[in-house]
Amino acid sequence: MDYFKVAHTQRAIRRFKPDPVPEDILWRMLDTAIRAPSGSNTQPWAWLVVRDSAKKKAIGDAIRRHRLDKNPLAEEQDPGKFAEKQANVRMLAGASDFYQSVATAPVLVIPCLTRSSTPDYDIRSLLAGASIYGAVQNLMLAGRALGVGSVMTTFNRFADESLRRELHLPDEVVPACLIPIGYPEGQRFGPTTRNPVESVTHWDGWEQTLPRP
Amino acid sequence: MDYFKVAHTQRAIRRFKPDPVPEDILWRMLDTAIRAPSGSNTQPWAWLVVRDSAKKKAIGDAIRRHRLDKNPLAEEQDPGKFAEKQANVRMLAGASDFYQSVATAPVLVIPCLTRSSTPDYDIRSLLAGASIYGAVQNLMLAGRALGVGSVMTTFNRFADESLRRELHLPDEVVPACLIPIGYPEGQRFGPTTRNPVESVTHWDGWEQTLPRP
Repeated sequence: MDYFKVAHTQRAIRRFKPDPVPEDILWRMLDTAIRAPSGSNTQPWAWLVVRDSAKKKAIGDAIRRHRLDKNPLAEEQDPGKFAEKQANVRMLAGASDFYQSVATAPVLVIPCLTRSSTPDYDIRSLLAGASIYGAVQNLMLAGRALGVGSVMTTFNRFADESLRRELHLPDEVVPACLIPIGYPEGQRFGPTTRNPVESVTHWDGWEQTLPRP
Repeated sequence: MDYFKVAHTQRAIRRFKPDPVPEDILWRMLDTAIRAPSGSNTQPWAWLVVRDSAKKKAIGDAIRRHRLDKNPLAEEQDPGKFAEKQANVRMLAGASDFYQSVATAPVLVIPCLTRSSTPDYDIRSLLAGASIYGAVQNLMLAGRALGVGSVMTTFNRFADESLRRELHLPDEVVPACLIPIGYPEGQRFGPTTRNPVESVTHWDGWEQTLPRP
């Protein structure tokens, strides 16, 4: 499939058919992921692929538990703030279904950094991300090209202990994100909503924007 | 061009023809970049495009100055370590040409984070990178599909002050990387060298690797 079509119709897929993703499709996605650049081509990554139901459930449960513990209505007295927080709770409730889909997606992929690509920045710093998230995007684009849906999440931050326990991660390995993967259920690939490119582009300095010809 | 061909033949292009990159090509690359996902679709980014020669030279000079100040031979007395550091210096000298190419590339793109996509992590943390480096990869893949070369660098870390001064960046904006862009000179797109995908993939737990069928 043409690259531009792939890139322009990639969208977050959050509900999946129960059908497994064939192993050769997963290998093709992973093998495309690792073609992305990394600092000095150090490839400082490890790709955890989870299909085991009990492990997926444990990880999904840890995420849901963490989020529900943070119910923002619990201690709010001010009526104005209560209404605002109610909206958050509705969002959370919708998201809660999504946590369920973490548990029920046919596959979870957890890309991890195994080290920093250069000694002068920390593995948990923004710049370390330059050596993993490009590969993650390659993976998700490959999925879209093959009809496989995915959604980038950083829910790994709500389940660090569970991830390490379930997947036996060495201490020095740092999960970068958590990606549920499967065939889309009731959702289609298609164009996404974005702010116009002119509104986020600056030419030769912050103050200069240009109209797109 | 087919997505898999694009992804598998993207490679770091470090030397550029002096020819300008047409504006419609740049817009197309940028408009493909912003199709990538970001946390809750917040699109927390700004794209700085630099074509002004004086600004490119100032940024390239700042990077070179920073690196040459760190010449590792300067204070080494031990002969064994001296030899080892000599190798580093040769690498630096080669890299120095590369810094020159920062100054002479037709275009520099500096993708920046304008905020964190969620309040619970810092804009300079690894997870914030999930909302910018995927878009950067989209940009570079679009370049490759259109015959335009690029190379991901984090040299912005050597030139933060210069970048802010030359491009009038607001204080809260954080450069994520620095990407020289142009038509390849004496380099071709093509397959890259990577560790085999089986060696970096773990199934249902760190201890389990699988052969690729």
